[in-house]
Amino acid sequence: MSGETGGMRFKPPGPLAELLGIRAETLGEGEARVGLTLSDDHLNPYGVVHGGVVYSLVDTAMGAALVSRLEPGERCTTLEIKINYLAPATEGDLAAEARLVQRTRRVGVLEARVTGAGGALIALATGTFYIQGGAAG
Amino acid sequence: MSGETGGMRFKPPGPLAELLGIRAETLGEGEARVGLTLSDDHLNPYGVVHGGVVYSLVDTAMGAALVSRLEPGERCTTLEIKINYLAPATEGDLAAEARLVQRTRRVGVLEARVTGAGGALIALATGTFYIQGGAAG
Amino acid sequence: MSGETGGMRFKPPGPLAELLGIRAETLGEGEARVGLTLSDDHLNPYGVVHGGVVYSLVDTAMGAALVSRLEPGERCTTLEIKINYLAPATEGDLAAEARLVQRTRRVGVLEARVTGAGGALIALATGTFYIQGGAAG
Amino acid sequence: MSGETGGMRFKPPGPLAELLGIRAETLGEGEARVGLTLSDDHLNPYGVVHGGVVYSLVDTAMGAALVSRLEPGERCTTLEIKINYLAPATEGDLAAEARLVQRTRRVGVLEARVTGAGGALIALATGTFYIQGGAAG
Repeated sequence: MSGETGGMRFKPPGPLAELLGIRAETLGEGEARVGLTLSDDHLNPYGVVHGGVVYSLVDTAMGAALVSRLEPGERCTTLEIKINYLAPATEGDLAAEARLVQRTRRVGVLEARVTGAGGALIALATGTFYIQGGAAG
Repeated sequence: MSGETGGMRFKPPGPLAELLGIRAETLGEGEARVGLTLSDDHLNPYGVVHGGVVYSLVDTAMGAALVSRLEPGERCTTLEIKINYLAPATEGDLAAEARLVQRTRRVGVLEARVTGAGGALIALATGTFYIQGGAAG
Repeated sequence: MSGETGGMRFKPPGPLAELLGIRAETLGEGEARVGLTLSDDHLNPYGVVHGGVVYSLVDTAMGAALVSRLEPGERCTTLEIKINYLAPATEGDLAAEARLVQRTRRVGVLEARVTGAGGALIALATGTFYIQGGAAG
Repeated sequence: MSGETGGMRFKPPGPLAELLGIRAETLGEGEARVGLTLSDDHLNPYGVVHGGVVYSLVDTAMGAALVSRLEPGERCTTLEIKINYLAPATEGDLAAEARLVQRTRRVGVLEARVTGAGGALIALATGTFYIQGGAAG
């Protein structure tokens, strides 16, 4: 069981993350930072990063931050995320930092920020995740 | 100028949409439907579709629905989107249908639903877009 | 136990609802409509209805719509609500209609619309509620 | 014109705020804190503070934080707010602190936190406001 948690904790980020080039950067207790280097593949028709790329970073960072606080046998799914876009990005690195604000037995609430080149604030987000399984399951 | 609008209106969905396999399906006045066929590339580490894929469909559909109501010289950017996930999806087609609920001179509000195989409801979302440019700009 | 559910179901809307003049109008299976008649007390410093009044209608309608689908011994709390404002209102009646989009064992997702005089669309909202208690509790 | 801004800036919080007992506490540049002392009037049928009260604090604090950064002749309206509830409150004081994260010519993005007795985190929220008027208007 602890093996499963360990597996989730250090598991590679998965196929979509690989397709987008998302890499895990740091993982703390209730915190996670993931990033990617922008390429032409990430752009929308206007030549700036597609909102879905920024969102995917946020969702991935939130999931990782929450997983760091799961017990053996627990797993989590996104109930909802709301993202506000603050500035466009066209090149360089993007990083999403997520923080677990609160976890109850079944629900985790997280917030995240996305920054771009030079630390510019690109987006902020809040999300709610549902936690399944575990000893109390 | 009308050429530019026409260009936006029928422009291919862009690099990220191509990477994810998102295709425009129908475009009405203030409405749009976009879809994709799920493949392994769209999955998260748990083997279900990554939230970022579903979100990218929603953002793309909302943008297309709003663009259908833009005047010559106007363009739009996403201010925020909130998405609620209702069910996981693992295979088959996903479709996002977006509808423009209201447009003022500078702001568009949209809602969207994502459905999967057999019409199952996968997600619902609301979003706010900012409209730039135009004769009044 | 069914008495408790019945009690929740037909309980008066509570002190804050009374303070604001919120009245239950109709209650169906997974649906509810609540309303109020605007007075000077509901206004913000600009002379239009305060966003908190519109929001309170939405939260109350969503809660009522979900309660109509609770089992004996279950109760619900709001995890999050997002509300988009579409038009200001200054007088006449406001009504919020909420609909339960999906309920799982522990989570309900709802959407709501608020209309004003002449049926004008004032706001739209989506929300997530947590369900506690019940036989499985 | 500067008189109008001054008026908005220091105007009493308005009728709904008075009805709920909301008081302005501190106002900085792009920041504001408002509070209230819970009474029976603020409760829902379950005996805890109604979500609409917490939300009204947030909306009021965000508006005040943004107004502190408006130019003469500008005014703002709420486009959308999303609020996550973290803990119930039944008595004592509630305070909402809002911060302007970014302001462009026409849009302000804000975040807020609500704390209760002993500094307990009650809610967090993000919002988008539209800015009208001003020299550029």
